Amino acid sequence: MPYIAEDKRRVVTRLRRIRGQAEALERAVEAGTECAQLLQQLAALRGAATSLMTEVLDMHLRETFVTPPAQTTPPDAQALNHAVDEVMRIVRAYVR
Amino acid sequence: MPYIAEDKRRVVTRLRRIRGQAEALERAVEAGTECAQLLQQLAALRGAATSLMTEVLDMHLRETFVTPPAQTTPPDAQALNHAVDEVMRIVRAYVR
Amino acid sequence: MPYIAEDKRRVVTRLRRIRGQAEALERAVEAGTECAQLLQQLAALRGAATSLMTEVLDMHLRETFVTPPAQTTPPDAQALNHAVDEVMRIVRAYVR
Amino acid sequence: MPYIAEDKRRVVTRLRRIRGQAEALERAVEAGTECAQLLQQLAALRGAATSLMTEVLDMHLRETFVTPPAQTTPPDAQALNHAVDEVMRIVRAYVR
Repeated sequence: MPYIAEDKRRVVTRLRRIRGQAEALERAVEAGTECAQLLQQLAALRGAATSLMTEVLDMHLRETFVTPPAQTTPPDAQALNHAVDEVMRIVRAYVR
Repeated sequence: MPYIAEDKRRVVTRLRRIRGQAEALERAVEAGTECAQLLQQLAALRGAATSLMTEVLDMHLRETFVTPPAQTTPPDAQALNHAVDEVMRIVRAYVR
Repeated sequence: MPYIAEDKRRVVTRLRRIRGQAEALERAVEAGTECAQLLQQLAALRGAATSLMTEVLDMHLRETFVTPPAQTTPPDAQALNHAVDEVMRIVRAYVR
Repeated sequence: MPYIAEDKRRVVTRLRRIRGQAEALERAVEAGTECAQLLQQLAALRGAATSLMTEVLDMHLRETFVTPPAQTTPPDAQALNHAVDEVMRIVRAYVR
């Protein structure tokens, strides 16, 4: 998880922006906005989710493989292999 | 745009669900949830945005190429070509 | 299908390029190239397939909705709806 | 890179299959196959490239973070951070 307070703040800010995009889209639909424009706004929301994914994945890889939190003993090969399985499950959820 | 009230309701409902997913993710980050789980929840939010895109694109294609709204004169070749340009701009925003 | 000879030539050329990228990747693996570089080359091949998809989809939309081939009677609503179903099946195969 | 001969063989076999898919698509275009079918075949080729990417990325993560090749000294934090930068560059090349 984002251990550093600054990382947490950044992730929460970006999630709020995504929430704001969803609210703006609701208003746009209610106002009868054209589908083409709705689809572009939806692409922007999805793009924000993708870019947030890469930021959190970056944190996750560093926390897992580079500098595990101080209080834990260094992960052994089995734990590291399990961590790779988890990363690959995540990556597969995002690519087609 | 979604002309039929039922279509509008369905799109707004799905946008509210995406908003709810973003809120749930904010709470999860504040609660210190592990990155791997955050990333799976984020993949679900992004998947919901992708699936909503395909639903709105489907509406857009039918409104544009099959049954344009009654009050407009049938689109000529130039208007139809312009509509294809717009659809392709949208599709390119979603694929890599 | 790409009716115009020039369209056909362009699509075949781009397919040959993708074939060439696959052959180059085979040689790179045999030569012991690092995974990171293989993955970048594979991303380029996949990107070429995505970009060819958008080109052929563009042709398909125009042939179907703008200027159907001369020898066929203009498609009725049922045929056009069927064509939209087909386009959506294709789009869904490319997005997650 | 795929160090184990068996890994290499598997990757080369899958690349040959992608090459075969590109050749089959060339023949299909020459034979005047409908765009919709070409697009489905192209989606299959792209899907094969995506799935090969995940397989090679899996190898890369294990070789880098779990069991680096015997002859090299265990990577220090700087090298591991650099490796994460590289993995993220790769992941970003595949998602939108």
